[in-house]
Amino acid sequence: MISNDIVTDQNAARDADLNADYDALGARLSRSGTDIETLTEKAMRFAVAVPSWGTGTGGTRFARFPGAGEPATIFDKLDDCGVINQLTRATPTVSLHIPWDKADPDDLLAKAEQLGLGFDAMNSNTFSDTGDAHSYKFGSLSHVSEETRAQAVEHNLECIEIGRRIGSKALTVWIGDGSNFPGQTHMGRQFERYLASMKQIYAGLPEDWRLFSEHKIYEPAFYSTVVQDWGTSLLTAQELGDKAMCLVDLGHHAPNVNIEMIVSRLIHAGKLGGFHFNDSKYGDDDLDSGTIEPYRLFLVWNELVDAEPRGLNLSHMIDQSHNVTDPIESLMISAMEIQRAYVQASLVDREALTGYQQQNDALMASATLRAAFRTDVEPILQMARVRAGGAIDPVATYRAAAYRAAVAAKRPEVLGGGGGIV
Amino acid sequence: MISNDIVTDQNAARDADLNADYDALGARLSRSGTDIETLTEKAMRFAVAVPSWGTGTGGTRFARFPGAGEPATIFDKLDDCGVINQLTRATPTVSLHIPWDKADPDDLLAKAEQLGLGFDAMNSNTFSDTGDAHSYKFGSLSHVSEETRAQAVEHNLECIEIGRRIGSKALTVWIGDGSNFPGQTHMGRQFERYLASMKQIYAGLPEDWRLFSEHKIYEPAFYSTVVQDWGTSLLTAQELGDKAMCLVDLGHHAPNVNIEMIVSRLIHAGKLGGFHFNDSKYGDDDLDSGTIEPYRLFLVWNELVDAEPRGLNLSHMIDQSHNVTDPIESLMISAMEIQRAYVQASLVDREALTGYQQQNDALMASATLRAAFRTDVEPILQMARVRAGGAIDPVATYRAAAYRAAVAAKRPEVLGGGGGIV
Amino acid sequence: MISNDIVTDQNAARDADLNADYDALGARLSRSGTDIETLTEKAMRFAVAVPSWGTGTGGTRFARFPGAGEPATIFDKLDDCGVINQLTRATPTVSLHIPWDKADPDDLLAKAEQLGLGFDAMNSNTFSDTGDAHSYKFGSLSHVSEETRAQAVEHNLECIEIGRRIGSKALTVWIGDGSNFPGQTHMGRQFERYLASMKQIYAGLPEDWRLFSEHKIYEPAFYSTVVQDWGTSLLTAQELGDKAMCLVDLGHHAPNVNIEMIVSRLIHAGKLGGFHFNDSKYGDDDLDSGTIEPYRLFLVWNELVDAEPRGLNLSHMIDQSHNVTDPIESLMISAMEIQRAYVQASLVDREALTGYQQQNDALMASATLRAAFRTDVEPILQMARVRAGGAIDPVATYRAAAYRAAVAAKRPEVLGGGGGIV
Amino acid sequence: MISNDIVTDQNAARDADLNADYDALGARLSRSGTDIETLTEKAMRFAVAVPSWGTGTGGTRFARFPGAGEPATIFDKLDDCGVINQLTRATPTVSLHIPWDKADPDDLLAKAEQLGLGFDAMNSNTFSDTGDAHSYKFGSLSHVSEETRAQAVEHNLECIEIGRRIGSKALTVWIGDGSNFPGQTHMGRQFERYLASMKQIYAGLPEDWRLFSEHKIYEPAFYSTVVQDWGTSLLTAQELGDKAMCLVDLGHHAPNVNIEMIVSRLIHAGKLGGFHFNDSKYGDDDLDSGTIEPYRLFLVWNELVDAEPRGLNLSHMIDQSHNVTDPIESLMISAMEIQRAYVQASLVDREALTGYQQQNDALMASATLRAAFRTDVEPILQMARVRAGGAIDPVATYRAAAYRAAVAAKRPEVLGGGGGIV
Repeated sequence: MISNDIVTDQNAARDADLNADYDALGARLSRSGTDIETLTEKAMRFAVAVPSWGTGTGGTRFARFPGAGEPATIFDKLDDCGVINQLTRATPTVSLHIPWDKADPDDLLAKAEQLGLGFDAMNSNTFSDTGDAHSYKFGSLSHVSEETRAQAVEHNLECIEIGRRIGSKALTVWIGDGSNFPGQTHMGRQFERYLASMKQIYAGLPEDWRLFSEHKIYEPAFYSTVVQDWGTSLLTAQELGDKAMCLVDLGHHAPNVNIEMIVSRLIHAGKLGGFHFNDSKYGDDDLDSGTIEPYRLFLVWNELVDAEPRGLNLSHMIDQSHNVTDPIESLMISAMEIQRAYVQASLVDREALTGYQQQNDALMASATLRAAFRTDVEPILQMARVRAGGAIDPVATYRAAAYRAAVAAKRPEVLGGGGGIV
Repeated sequence: MISNDIVTDQNAARDADLNADYDALGARLSRSGTDIETLTEKAMRFAVAVPSWGTGTGGTRFARFPGAGEPATIFDKLDDCGVINQLTRATPTVSLHIPWDKADPDDLLAKAEQLGLGFDAMNSNTFSDTGDAHSYKFGSLSHVSEETRAQAVEHNLECIEIGRRIGSKALTVWIGDGSNFPGQTHMGRQFERYLASMKQIYAGLPEDWRLFSEHKIYEPAFYSTVVQDWGTSLLTAQELGDKAMCLVDLGHHAPNVNIEMIVSRLIHAGKLGGFHFNDSKYGDDDLDSGTIEPYRLFLVWNELVDAEPRGLNLSHMIDQSHNVTDPIESLMISAMEIQRAYVQASLVDREALTGYQQQNDALMASATLRAAFRTDVEPILQMARVRAGGAIDPVATYRAAAYRAAVAAKRPEVLGGGGGIV
Repeated sequence: MISNDIVTDQNAARDADLNADYDALGARLSRSGTDIETLTEKAMRFAVAVPSWGTGTGGTRFARFPGAGEPATIFDKLDDCGVINQLTRATPTVSLHIPWDKADPDDLLAKAEQLGLGFDAMNSNTFSDTGDAHSYKFGSLSHVSEETRAQAVEHNLECIEIGRRIGSKALTVWIGDGSNFPGQTHMGRQFERYLASMKQIYAGLPEDWRLFSEHKIYEPAFYSTVVQDWGTSLLTAQELGDKAMCLVDLGHHAPNVNIEMIVSRLIHAGKLGGFHFNDSKYGDDDLDSGTIEPYRLFLVWNELVDAEPRGLNLSHMIDQSHNVTDPIESLMISAMEIQRAYVQASLVDREALTGYQQQNDALMASATLRAAFRTDVEPILQMARVRAGGAIDPVATYRAAAYRAAVAAKRPEVLGGGGGIV
Repeated sequence: MISNDIVTDQNAARDADLNADYDALGARLSRSGTDIETLTEKAMRFAVAVPSWGTGTGGTRFARFPGAGEPATIFDKLDDCGVINQLTRATPTVSLHIPWDKADPDDLLAKAEQLGLGFDAMNSNTFSDTGDAHSYKFGSLSHVSEETRAQAVEHNLECIEIGRRIGSKALTVWIGDGSNFPGQTHMGRQFERYLASMKQIYAGLPEDWRLFSEHKIYEPAFYSTVVQDWGTSLLTAQELGDKAMCLVDLGHHAPNVNIEMIVSRLIHAGKLGGFHFNDSKYGDDDLDSGTIEPYRLFLVWNELVDAEPRGLNLSHMIDQSHNVTDPIESLMISAMEIQRAYVQASLVDREALTGYQQQNDALMASATLRAAFRTDVEPILQMARVRAGGAIDPVATYRAAAYRAAVAAKRPEVLGGGGGIV
């Protein structure tokens, strides 16, 4: 963790400006009847999980270029997650990936407690081979071979068991199963095998757990993917039962798709489970949240805030690949951009919006959303962090603390090379 | 209709070649244990409906360039449909669009009988204003105004009533409702209003009818569309009941989407109702079937033929916009291209395919599909037409008969201009 | 025009808030060394042309739903354009479309002068038939028939002649030529015919004029389009000569394309001529600027502002289809959103940005752009309008003036119907 | 290499069928005035290069699942290429990738000679780090650092030098340079740096060599890519000079792009250098040629065959990632599918096509292309192989020879794992 003295010093240098900006914004918001304090409290309650593997430099199939001080173990990763939450106060939980993060659950719990962290949804991995008896080259939960499917089911049940011991309450299942050639698989039977495997996993779910089904249009399979879109994810969740929900990842859709509408439909169906946040321009680019299409992120949050009265239980995680930045910095910035969209969406004058919608006043309805989006809520985010003990400017504070150099001195060097995500 | 003498003469000139090609193909197919006669019989049983409005030259928002002899009334259109079926023997039914085709049901029936035609699914139109009290500018079945929704429901019930009297057994509902601006509509409530309206229509459905829900990603709405994809279409069909099914149009999807997989998923869900055939490169281009991506058309049929043992009751229609061709020619060619894909898909060695799939032999599984696709089944299609009384070469025969010139002399001239679909 | 009393009254009601917001923003900007007055002056110098046809309600191929008080003549349209500029002070010029706007040039000049307007680039129309001898059904400037090409060339020369008399200095050529079927045209020869026609038009260009080549990936042609992308547009401009430049329309690209990069490349090539502004989610949706992806609009302006030292002579126009809003309101909002992006892009700390780029500090470089984008420059835009005699809130002022009701009482009613753009 | 006895035996079992099919097809083609022998000779002259790295199992960023008998060295790869050409007689040259294939040029030449192979274009690699002093994490030829650019230039010059010694006549430059964040790079200056580096490489090109510029819309960079489309590739080739040409890869375009039109435009500009063949459904999927959209492959060849009278000097290579098949089998099948499209395109009745195009008979023009495409030219391909000493059925023959098992016994086992292309 970073010395609190550094955080304090850095905040002190920015405190006067923050107070001025906060007061000015508060005054302006009050003119339209909005209490800035309500928004700041919402911002303080905001939380998004960090994926353990996101703390390492990511790569593409062409190459991976590691940085200095790459985390070598799950405990290194938790250290990095601790720093992210220390400075942003927006990421109190970590999501683990098994087998990458396999360790003694008691050690995991102890380490997390020390860092003030908890554990979010568990993630299984049946998209690469890690020494098991049966290869996932041709699929996992939907494989034609019963033995391979059983192995994949067993792995998921093990993830649940690990998660149970560290306080997780959900399992996220994303598989790369699909095909690269028309005809390679019988798409109908493959889906039935997938459902049968998922039912076995579902049967092993503790009473208070949820199972998240995550869809993705393509990659690593390039002709067909078993759970290719929200329609198939919905069918899956419907067939499994009440504890099965759909997870939406912003980069897993076909080009041009209206993602906020999928959110709305899944809310209607009672099957929205949460999000994997990132941004994208072409495919599953796994870019930093809010850096490519920030208004799209706002529109997603607009649906979520609109549905707040329903009391949805949503599970949010950042899911990105940090190929050219310090992953800690990217995760901090991303958490704040997601939080920013949430606060902006909370600013929408919903009564006015509903009125315009009822009158088919498309122009003013649209202007009402944009008015919220263009409000610079940075002072609210900064104030929320300060009040919770975090940093006004997390990146500047992190750099001032020279954390990366410090861990680089302790952690083994990692060489770049032939590609891959971790 | 075209004089049978012309058909006979034209066929006579091609008869010897056909017999030679048919025998050669038969011999080759028999080597791999396939009986050409079985395929010819399948081809003869093939049928796809023609949309009445497809007989007129279509347009874009930029312009419409009518041709000579445009049909002026539904009876002209039925005449044209009669010719299409006379020559191809593949389009025995016509699908009507109300109010465009509104006429005395008895007259419609009499005319159809005279031409040897029947009626397929009815199509309602609530995407343009045609003089009704309430405008559909801001929606129809999902409009915020109860009066407008009621009017749209009433129109659909009228379509059912007309259809009931002419022997139709299904209603296809496609609406353009949506929005052009984020915020213009509350996407959740809009969908709920749509469902409520659809339930009223469903309640008016005769016992032996079906209701087809058709999705489309965009156009005429350019930000959100109420029934934007198969997921929402499925939700709709699920909420309505057993008589509600999903219709798939090949041009109504996001870029890159695997349409044959949607077919497979809807079959799994028991909700596939049929197809609107066309081809596309960019959006809902409504191009002639099989002219852009013929292998995609084959892969769709591969799913349908694979599912034949399930005894699905599917309703197939051509849905195209013929902007630069004689619509009669395009409809004939399109019916034959769809039929071609069906026969090619019927050629797939499914036992071998299943074997390769079980062994994860992606290369040979894929090659098995391609072997069927590259078989030139033209002699089978020609023989099926001849045996049913049609033309070996429908386009050449049609041109020889100078049908277009004949009707152009009788029908009023239509001027081009500012665009639109009909 | 709207009574100045109404503008004054409306402004008076908002004046105190504006001053407070302006001062607060000015104070905040001065902390980072930015002088708000410099920005306000930039905002006051901003101008974007309004297309005459944009003042009428647009439609799709499915339908057009006109509103009240549709302009019936070019003089009505100029009246509407006068109001737009009166309130926004950002649209001093109008772009005409021939033959839609054909009228005595002296009358056009007199009317414009009375309204305080000038004329921007001329637009020719060879994508629909308007009574000429040769139809454009199968193309215009690239048609196989020499007579048709000559007619289209002649029409463009006439546009130049009209433009010359009303003070325009540029001709924009956008054609719909292409094909709907593979094989329909020989793509190479078609392009050569197009180039030959364009050379004839270029030869008729006055010395101080420019010729803008505008590309579009598809629509109204759905398989191939002669000028389908910026590469072909560039080839065209290169072959024509120094007065030929490329025009970029935000909605004319393939999905996912990085448009700001095309801007950068055309600047490199010395061939960027200007923009047609709008927004889009799927295709050439022609939605209101800044309503779908405002950050993309900002990134385009970021390139343009970056290139300001080059002294580019750019021609900017709004090009939208207003299907569900009052076109005057949409054009005002759009002009202001484009202006907003320009001012935000002018806020980018380019020295800091260059520094981060040199250090490969992707995170801070990206954050530098976002910091400018999230600054709420609304007070600057409002102040620029007030100082130039416009309205603080143009839409509210326009509504208060009841302009639409007034013209609706005078202009002939337009019935909706079968679709089309105008 | 595979024993000729096996080839002979396998051919003998298929010889009678081939002769029957060849005669039947010949008879049918002669009816329309086509001499089958002319086509068979064209098929025999067909050649496409194999990329050395394509003989290894490819992977994604998620995982790589190697098969048995993976080639461990360039000499193993050449052995595999020898088998591919032995059986297909369509792949006489191999394209090397440096540094992956670095070896003593004399040894490479000797090995190739022994296998009857030659060397095609050289490929440089500056998209991953392989131990050089400067990292390519933030770019190579366009890097902000002069040292890094110099290193990348030097590497390309080394590729030329190696190529010169083994008889290659071209260098293909594809770089992954770009950015993952708006603002990360100055897109204009980055392109200028790229051009400056390319000019240095171009200066080192032997007189009889060509330099191929290859574009790609995205990956590994996910916001911007320096050479993102054919427009930028064209600008590059124009600025470099006559020896610089553009290479088109079928999977490197934005969704929906008309690739055959790009071919046509590059031919017009005199800058088409050749192809990288593969197939794709979503992005740069690198799937086997002709397995997803075979008609698109045909349409590309239709442009190339149409341009044959121009005497273009084109360089063709297969560029695929074989993730789930035996790479040797995929390369053989792919070479044959590319050859198939070439022969089908050679079947197009160009005189008839031109006639239909001149008459704007879109329907018959399109039908003319489809008639060629649907002709099953398999007997021609088989006969061409037999006559050149290859196998009638390369895959069956390869399997009968058990080549893979034989090399698997000799080559070191490769473990799967974390992803990457090689």
